Amino acid sequence: MEHISGGVCAAKGFKAGGVHCGIRKNRTKRDLSMIVSEVPASAAAVYTQNLVKGAPILVTKRNIANGIAQAMICNSGNANTCNADGEEIAWKMCELAGQAAGIKPEDVIVASTGVIGQPLPIDPIASGMGPLVSSLSDHGSNEAAEGIMTTDTRLKEVAVSFTAGGVTCHLGGIAKGSGMIHPNMATMLVFLTCDAAISPALLQKALSADAQDSFNMISIDGDTSTNDMVSIMANGLAGNAPITEENEDYAAFCAALKEVTTTLCRAIAKDGEGATRLLTCIVTGGKTIKDAKLAAKSVVCSSLLKAAIFGSDANWGRVLCALGYSGAEIDVQAVDVAFRSTKGMITVCQNGASVDFSEEKAKEILLEDEIDVLITLRDGDASATAWGCDLTYDYVKINGDYRT
Amino acid sequence: MEHISGGVCAAKGFKAGGVHCGIRKNRTKRDLSMIVSEVPASAAAVYTQNLVKGAPILVTKRNIANGIAQAMICNSGNANTCNADGEEIAWKMCELAGQAAGIKPEDVIVASTGVIGQPLPIDPIASGMGPLVSSLSDHGSNEAAEGIMTTDTRLKEVAVSFTAGGVTCHLGGIAKGSGMIHPNMATMLVFLTCDAAISPALLQKALSADAQDSFNMISIDGDTSTNDMVSIMANGLAGNAPITEENEDYAAFCAALKEVTTTLCRAIAKDGEGATRLLTCIVTGGKTIKDAKLAAKSVVCSSLLKAAIFGSDANWGRVLCALGYSGAEIDVQAVDVAFRSTKGMITVCQNGASVDFSEEKAKEILLEDEIDVLITLRDGDASATAWGCDLTYDYVKINGDYRT
Repeated sequence: MEHISGGVCAAKGFKAGGVHCGIRKNRTKRDLSMIVSEVPASAAAVYTQNLVKGAPILVTKRNIANGIAQAMICNSGNANTCNADGEEIAWKMCELAGQAAGIKPEDVIVASTGVIGQPLPIDPIASGMGPLVSSLSDHGSNEAAEGIMTTDTRLKEVAVSFTAGGVTCHLGGIAKGSGMIHPNMATMLVFLTCDAAISPALLQKALSADAQDSFNMISIDGDTSTNDMVSIMANGLAGNAPITEENEDYAAFCAALKEVTTTLCRAIAKDGEGATRLLTCIVTGGKTIKDAKLAAKSVVCSSLLKAAIFGSDANWGRVLCALGYSGAEIDVQAVDVAFRSTKGMITVCQNGASVDFSEEKAKEILLEDEIDVLITLRDGDASATAWGCDLTYDYVKINGDYRT
Repeated sequence: MEHISGGVCAAKGFKAGGVHCGIRKNRTKRDLSMIVSEVPASAAAVYTQNLVKGAPILVTKRNIANGIAQAMICNSGNANTCNADGEEIAWKMCELAGQAAGIKPEDVIVASTGVIGQPLPIDPIASGMGPLVSSLSDHGSNEAAEGIMTTDTRLKEVAVSFTAGGVTCHLGGIAKGSGMIHPNMATMLVFLTCDAAISPALLQKALSADAQDSFNMISIDGDTSTNDMVSIMANGLAGNAPITEENEDYAAFCAALKEVTTTLCRAIAKDGEGATRLLTCIVTGGKTIKDAKLAAKSVVCSSLLKAAIFGSDANWGRVLCALGYSGAEIDVQAVDVAFRSTKGMITVCQNGASVDFSEEKAKEILLEDEIDVLITLRDGDASATAWGCDLTYDYVKINGDYRT
């Protein structure tokens, strides 16, 4: 497996693009993106667990119920959620995209992101569809990635190549994240493309399993969004023997998927709203996977710890506190905690109690951009990783006045 | 029932005081508080549900297992949690307090609040005990309230008088709050005193029930502290016929308790770390009490909504979003949302969808200090209230560098 360039266009037969159509006021920001496959593709998706679901999610669910899709259309600037005519508008987006790209509207994955509860005007989308389709190209992944950004500060895309059945395949993705990112899916938009041939059922199985360890282990602010989803299209143009059972090729596909999703997870967490640091919590020695996951998630969700990380303060008491209310079965008298970055590692708590450590060294470690919190439990051999970010003034600023 | 002055000294036979003994570096801040009853009192308490529990909690639990206490001692500046010698130190505090005040050490409620994981030195407490006991007076509630403050900006005390069995009784309390305040008990320190005669069993029953609707419905930042508790002593000096069954007098006692705890809840939430606004979420029409509570708590816990309230932004989509992931059984198509303050009320969402409203009027309402979010469900007739605050730059500032 190898990292390559190209994002969602790394896989054969996929074109992408993004334009400004006018949903966002700022004319320099793209707000409408599209990805199209030359041929119909196997499709799968995972969705938010929020009871309030964006209208595009309802339409996408129906559209890919047959396991087939050929394109995705997504706007930013408006979530098309809590609107009386939301489903109608989302379906209209599919029709417009299908018409312009020459594919069936029911083969379109549709998504929207942005403010909730404001009617989404269809006019800018209708008039933008022509320029959007004209802009599609096999090096358009960047533009598509830009068009789905909201408060993201960095474009997020990745691609890898891997081998299945002796054939080189490609899997790539773009993502948007920032706020409203929290465990329990699908709290961001991620669009994945792949040129391997794989059955819709296995594609869904792989994606659902992967999300448990990737996107469900990120938290920016504890809010689970209404709109977001992770979708994948696999069009088979690599020419591998179709993956229809859980064999070696399936394993290779899953490994490539994991590499792509984990890379996007880190990018999303690091670019959390206002974030200055990527916070990775690695728990080992858990009684069960469930306990290890609960523990890791609780730590990256703690507002108090997140603020301490912003201040480069080795306040490990807040780590123990977060473990204590995580709901995980933990022997709190047998917990070790260490902080790690490129500047080294420092143990700050052993057996649930304070140990002498150099505050200076801790500060040096915690001033880096990427901080690992290493937690050793002595309850078993399960482990888990969760990703988050620090809590900063800018998070408050961004969210204090997002809508107006 | 009437609000009166005097705090924890409003009830007959209680003296209180607070001094600076040297645990905190700032010599102008009191860091050791005491409340003493003339006679042994019925005692009850509720504690944090965090698995990591401060040593003082373990000692207090043992001390009041017999339902009796006569004094409380509490320091601020150090939580005495995650320390190998924690329980020894906490018990030593009881011995010193008992000795100085002339009561049994096992009749002492002991508490600590502050940073976790730093050994608590006993020397300043030992040398401060003399001055502390000398400072005790029947108008010392203020000093005691000051001595338990950490990042609180305002002293919190309240008292009421009520009638039980034709006799006037008094119930008062002091509290500290600010950070690490979250539903699921007992996420702050609250010390209550009462001069009514009531059995320990009924006292515990009343306190446990009350906490479900009061202290378990506050959230400042989603972190459940390791240390905190709500305790009450009732010494019987009012001379009422002892309350030993759930009769009218018990109801009068419970009503007084509710008035005192609710007042303290609002004070704690309003003085949340960095808070500029009290946020009260009132849910009506819930299917069950549990659903109504889940919904109300989820709303006051949402970082996104809290940041919007800081920015006086009527971003009701975030209210719906929080309802959607609350875990409550809710028909999201049948939700109404309104914002209310002393400037009026404005409906911003009906039947789960946007309604036209004046942004100007909404801004005017949301610029006030105390904001109510009114949520009407159409699932039943259960209701619930939760309290929280906005999320501000100062929360981040306070918690980015608390320890150093």
